[in-house]
Formats: sequence, C-alpha cells, structure tokens
Amino acid sequence: MKKQGILTIVSGFSGAGKGTLMKRLLSQYQEDYCLSVSATTREPRKGETDGKEYFFISVELFEQMIETGQLLEYAKYLDNYYGTPKNFVLDKLDSGVNVLLEIEMQGALKIKAQYPETLLIFILPPSVPLLEQRLRGRGTETDEVIDARLKRAHDEMEFIKNYDYIVVNDHLDTCTERIHQIVVNEQYRVHRNREFINRIERELLAYQKGE
Amino acid sequence: MKKQGILTIVSGFSGAGKGTLMKRLLSQYQEDYCLSVSATTREPRKGETDGKEYFFISVELFEQMIETGQLLEYAKYLDNYYGTPKNFVLDKLDSGVNVLLEIEMQGALKIKAQYPETLLIFILPPSVPLLEQRLRGRGTETDEVIDARLKRAHDEMEFIKNYDYIVVNDHLDTCTERIHQIVVNEQYRVHRNREFINRIERELLAYQKGE
Repeated sequence: MKKQGILTIVSGFSGAGKGTLMKRLLSQYQEDYCLSVSATTREPRKGETDGKEYFFISVELFEQMIETGQLLEYAKYLDNYYGTPKNFVLDKLDSGVNVLLEIEMQGALKIKAQYPETLLIFILPPSVPLLEQRLRGRGTETDEVIDARLKRAHDEMEFIKNYDYIVVNDHLDTCTERIHQIVVNEQYRVHRNREFINRIERELLAYQKGE
Repeated sequence: MKKQGILTIVSGFSGAGKGTLMKRLLSQYQEDYCLSVSATTREPRKGETDGKEYFFISVELFEQMIETGQLLEYAKYLDNYYGTPKNFVLDKLDSGVNVLLEIEMQGALKIKAQYPETLLIFILPPSVPLLEQRLRGRGTETDEVIDARLKRAHDEMEFIKNYDYIVVNDHLDTCTERIHQIVVNEQYRVHRNREFINRIERELLAYQKGE
C-alpha cells in the first residue's frame, strides 16, 4: 500500500519556540519529515540563510508566483509577504514523507480548506509572562514590536478552535516527542486508511460468495 | 486543571481480538483505564464470570433498566440484549480515569451522538482469512454462527467511516501500545483543552491592559 505523507502545519505565537521544535524534530526523525521552506520578501535576520529559514525573494518575484498559482497560500504581515511554494510540498507528500510547515494561522486555515487532511498543531507557551520573557530574551526586538506580537497573539486566539491539537512547549524534548506521536497516530485515522478498509470489505464479500 | 477521562469505545469484528487487547491494556496501564462492564441477557460462556466479562442479568431486569434510563445504550443481537450501565461510566470519567467500552458499532454511534467527545477505535484483523481462522480456532462456534458473524462483519463495514481510528491487530503488544498512544494523544485535542486556552487568552488580555 502506497503511503501518503501527512502535511503537518505547526503554528504558534511568535516566541513560542516553533523554530527550535521543528529543527529538533527534523534532526531526530530525519527519514520521517522534511521542512517546507517558505518564500518571503522580508529582510533576512542575522544568521538566516537563503533557502534554509526562508527563500528571500523580491516583491516582484513573489507577486509573479501569486499570479501563476505557484503558492499553496500566502499572506502579508508587517508589510512583508510570506508564502508556501506548492510543488515542493505536494511532491514530498506523494513520496510518503511528512511535510512540516511552520506558518501563521490564516495561511494554515486556507490550506486546510483546500486540503482537508492537513494536520494543524498549535504550540502554546506554558504562560504569557513566560512568552513575554522569551521574546525580550531574544534581544532583537523593540518594545513596540513585542507589544505588536502579543497583541497579534491575542487576535489569533479565536482561530485556535479550528486547529486539531495544541501542544504546550514547556520542555523541548517532551514537546518534540509529543508532536511526533501526534503525526504518527494520525496515520491510523479512518479517513487515511480507505484503501485497507476497502480490501477487508472485498475479502468479506468474497467469503460470503464462497470464493 | 481538573482532568476529564476519555470515553474510549473499542469495537471490532467478532474474533478480531478486542477482549485480549482490553485485558492487556488494563493490566499494563492500570491507573489510566478502567473497563466498563456491560449488562447482557445472554448465557455466560464457559469461563465467564458475572461482573467481570458481563453482568449476566434477566430479560425482566434489563427491560426495567431501559425504562428507567439507566443505560447509556443497548442493543439486541442474536436474541440477546447488551447494554452499558450509565452511572458507572460517567462517574469514572469525572474522576479523570479513561473508560474503555467494548461494544458493537450501532451502540457506539448512539453514544457518540449523545457524547461527541467519545473516542471511537475500530480493531481490524490483518485479513479476512486470518479472521476466519481465529474464529474457527476458538472451537466454540458452529459453522452457521461463524458464517453469521462474518456476514455481520460485512454489514458493519459501512459504519467504519464514522469511527475515529482503525488499528490492525497484527501483533498484540504493538496493537495495545497503539491504542494507548491514541488515547494519550487525544488529550492534546483542542476541544479537550478549552480551560487552558481560556487561561492564555485572559493572560494576553491582561498584558494588553498593562496589568
């Protein structure tokens, strides 16, 4: 039976630790996952590499990809475009690899609407004071940006109900393992096993016919 | 945060090994699960004990329990009544213990309609020839009964789509562990974590208000 990969979208407030979790998941279970790299028009942060954290592209190229339908979803956030190149994701899923996609909620819900079998996981911090502490600890953001991120976090709360799972990032290892277990379990969902169910049905019919 | 147990219904064709799986789960994870014992009007099989496999009760008493609303669901199968006493299940769930319920599909779907957070797992054999072999191996059933059970299995196939998960019983230990992992994961579903989500939302609001 040909196994189809599971498109797993991981979202979470800025500072919830999504990036670190994805890296851990990819290094611990190299054969099970690959990361979908998003395209963006924002400037690279210090230490970010083109093609790794993001494909850093121009506004012109991004808008051309929109027009030619090469993006699974895209959004504009703080004056920058962010989007998911389509072909890469679909090819990987067909080859049986789970694709991890770290995007924000509205993009996630757009993809779920198109591809209902997408798995949506939301990472929450153990508490808001701890989230604030993590954001300030980065030392890369102004107070205004931190306020904007936490306001945005509050706005996003209403979309959590559309997600499948929440995972609290209280401990990196347990949180990584939890996400992995959720993806593994997802393979046992009834709607992902239609082929096997059909085979059993045919065998039961054959028994009744005395074949 | 008060933890609510998960009502987990395990169904499967006769001979799929549900009973053995339940026993294994209960002995390996004693603190996490308890078994809901059904009431039935059928005769005990050799080795079955009242209050353990079933509560073996009279037709009169069973019908009285139906009339007074003491059953979560009930069904008649091969001229016998089978049903789930209600209070036992609800009390255990409130105390945070997961309740395992081994019942047939129509009863399962009735309970899911009343209690949508019920988790439905269907156990399938690796193949129909293997299922037939297991049924004949019991040595307790006539050919007619085996034919009736496999015909019933075929009739049940249409309801599988209403279940949440299927687990193939190819190996007792992995199958037991799989069911356990499904139940554990279920605790991370968004709809089972409303209390925590509400807390984070309140904390974000308090931050914005500068509290």
